[in-house]
Formats: sequence, structure tokens, C-alpha cells
Amino acid sequence: MGRIRLIITAAALSACATAETPQQTQARMDAEAAAARPAIEARDAAYVAAFNAGKFDQTSATYTEQGIQMPPNSPANVGRAAIRKSDSTFFTLGTSILSVRIVSVVVNGPMAISQGEWTFEFKPGKNTPKGMKAMKDHGKALTHWHNVNGEWMMAHDIWNADTPAQP
Amino acid sequence: MGRIRLIITAAALSACATAETPQQTQARMDAEAAAARPAIEARDAAYVAAFNAGKFDQTSATYTEQGIQMPPNSPANVGRAAIRKSDSTFFTLGTSILSVRIVSVVVNGPMAISQGEWTFEFKPGKNTPKGMKAMKDHGKALTHWHNVNGEWMMAHDIWNADTPAQP
Repeated sequence: MGRIRLIITAAALSACATAETPQQTQARMDAEAAAARPAIEARDAAYVAAFNAGKFDQTSATYTEQGIQMPPNSPANVGRAAIRKSDSTFFTLGTSILSVRIVSVVVNGPMAISQGEWTFEFKPGKNTPKGMKAMKDHGKALTHWHNVNGEWMMAHDIWNADTPAQP
Repeated sequence: MGRIRLIITAAALSACATAETPQQTQARMDAEAAAARPAIEARDAAYVAAFNAGKFDQTSATYTEQGIQMPPNSPANVGRAAIRKSDSTFFTLGTSILSVRIVSVVVNGPMAISQGEWTFEFKPGKNTPKGMKAMKDHGKALTHWHNVNGEWMMAHDIWNADTPAQP
């Protein structure tokens, strides 16, 4: 029976992807999203705390090694070194205050997508170049997370503003 | 043996999510992405063709019923009616030419993410309001697709420009 058992198990496993009905897949994905959401929210909150504190080794390490950050009005930043550089742009020029909120999470296995909202405020200080003004903006974001050894990492992060363009 | 077989199969199936090693999951997802990419590219191309032809029932139907379109410098459009209205904004005012290119696709079961690039050109015509100028822009996009009854539909679509903000 050992051989039969092995064959049955192998057949059942190889049928994994199609063994679920669409309803079962959706139910499993909903359960996975509910389970993963607190961890993803915590990662997002840690990113924001590190960003506001100027800890850009930490913000960039939230991305996968080849993670892609896609800021508005700028080409994509590919990889942690480029993301680190981009994240730190405003830090020495004044006070930056970022906040984010996760609106929804979709998960299937090691793959997740979160829809988010953000606010950003820049307050000029003594190091602010002339002509650089205070600004306050808000908008939306979509993040593709990949679970690497149990930790959710950003593979893609893109955002834009809800407000009219301001050059 | 009938009962044993049933038990073994049920155990193997319920272990589906964890039965794969991370390497096996990645290999399966890579195979799924290779298989899905042509269909997703075709959906994207059909969207663009419909957009450029002013067929906004078709563009909005590319989204899931509660699909979320996230354009830059504007709040999100939720659901097909809102997306239809937003997509049609420029159509009667001049000539719009959209193009897109899929850069990468990640798939796990009914869930997919594509990273894309876009170009958009607006050429004024006789119906163009005074003060509305020709424009040409390009940027990046991230789309969350959901497979509904065998068809890839947009659940989230967000994009922004690679170029400096122009009000």
C-alpha cells in the first residue's frame, strides 16, 4: 500500500492549484488576508516611523532587494540603494511628516496587495533652500508585498496625489 | 482501503497551502505568470484600443464591478460608472492617444500584478476649450488583476508620471 499511498498523495498535491473551487479559493484568500493584515500594517507603520526619524537604512530594507519604488513625477527607484537615496531627499532640508493608512489587503500565499492612503507635510527650517515652500498633500497608494522567509517585503510601491498637480 | 484513501487525499488537500516548499511555490508562480502574461497583455491592449476609440463601456468593463481606478491628481474612481465617466473626460475635447507596455507580471492563482509603462498625448482640436494645451507625458503603472470566471479583470489600477509636475 506504500506505493499506492505515495501515488495518491502526489496526485492530490499536484492538483492543488485546481482542487479548490473558486469559492474555496476566495474563502482561503479572505482568511489569509485577515491573518496577514496586522503584520502588513505593522510593516507600513514601521516604515513611516523610520521615514519620519530619518532612518533610511530601515525604510529601504522594507523593500525586497530588487524592490521597485514608483514615486510620482520621478522615474522609478530600483533596489535599496536607489530607494534609500530617494527617501532621504527632503530629510535634511526641513521637517517631513508622513502618515499612511491601509484601506484593504488581498493575499494569496506569499503574495499580497494593499491599497493605502497617505498624507505628507513638509515644514521648512533653517536648512531649507530659498524658494522651497511648506507643502501638505494627500493621496492614495498601491503596494505589492512579497513574503520572504516569513516577513512581508515591498516588491512594488506606487502612489499619487488626490489633489491637482502643483509644480 | 476506500476509507484510508479518502483520509489521505483529504489530508494532502488541506495541506495544500503549506505542502509546497517556497521554491516550489515560486516555480509554480513563475509558470502561472508565463501562462497568464499574454492574456493580461491582450486585456491591456484591448483597453487602450477602446480608450483611443472612445469606447468607454469597454474600458470600464475591463475593471471588476467594484474595481478601483486611481489616477494621479484626482480622487479614486470606484466602480464602472465612475471609471467610465473619468475615462471619457478628454475624448470630446481633442485627440487622446494612450499607449501602454507591460514590464512584468506576477501571478498566484486568481491574483495577478502587472508593472507597466504608459505614454499619453493630447492634441487640441476644434472642440478644445481655450487655454487647454497640447500635452505629452509618460510614466509608470501598477495593476492588480483578479481572474473572474477565466477572464483577467482590473481590481486596482494606479499610475503616475515620470516627469515633473505640470499643473
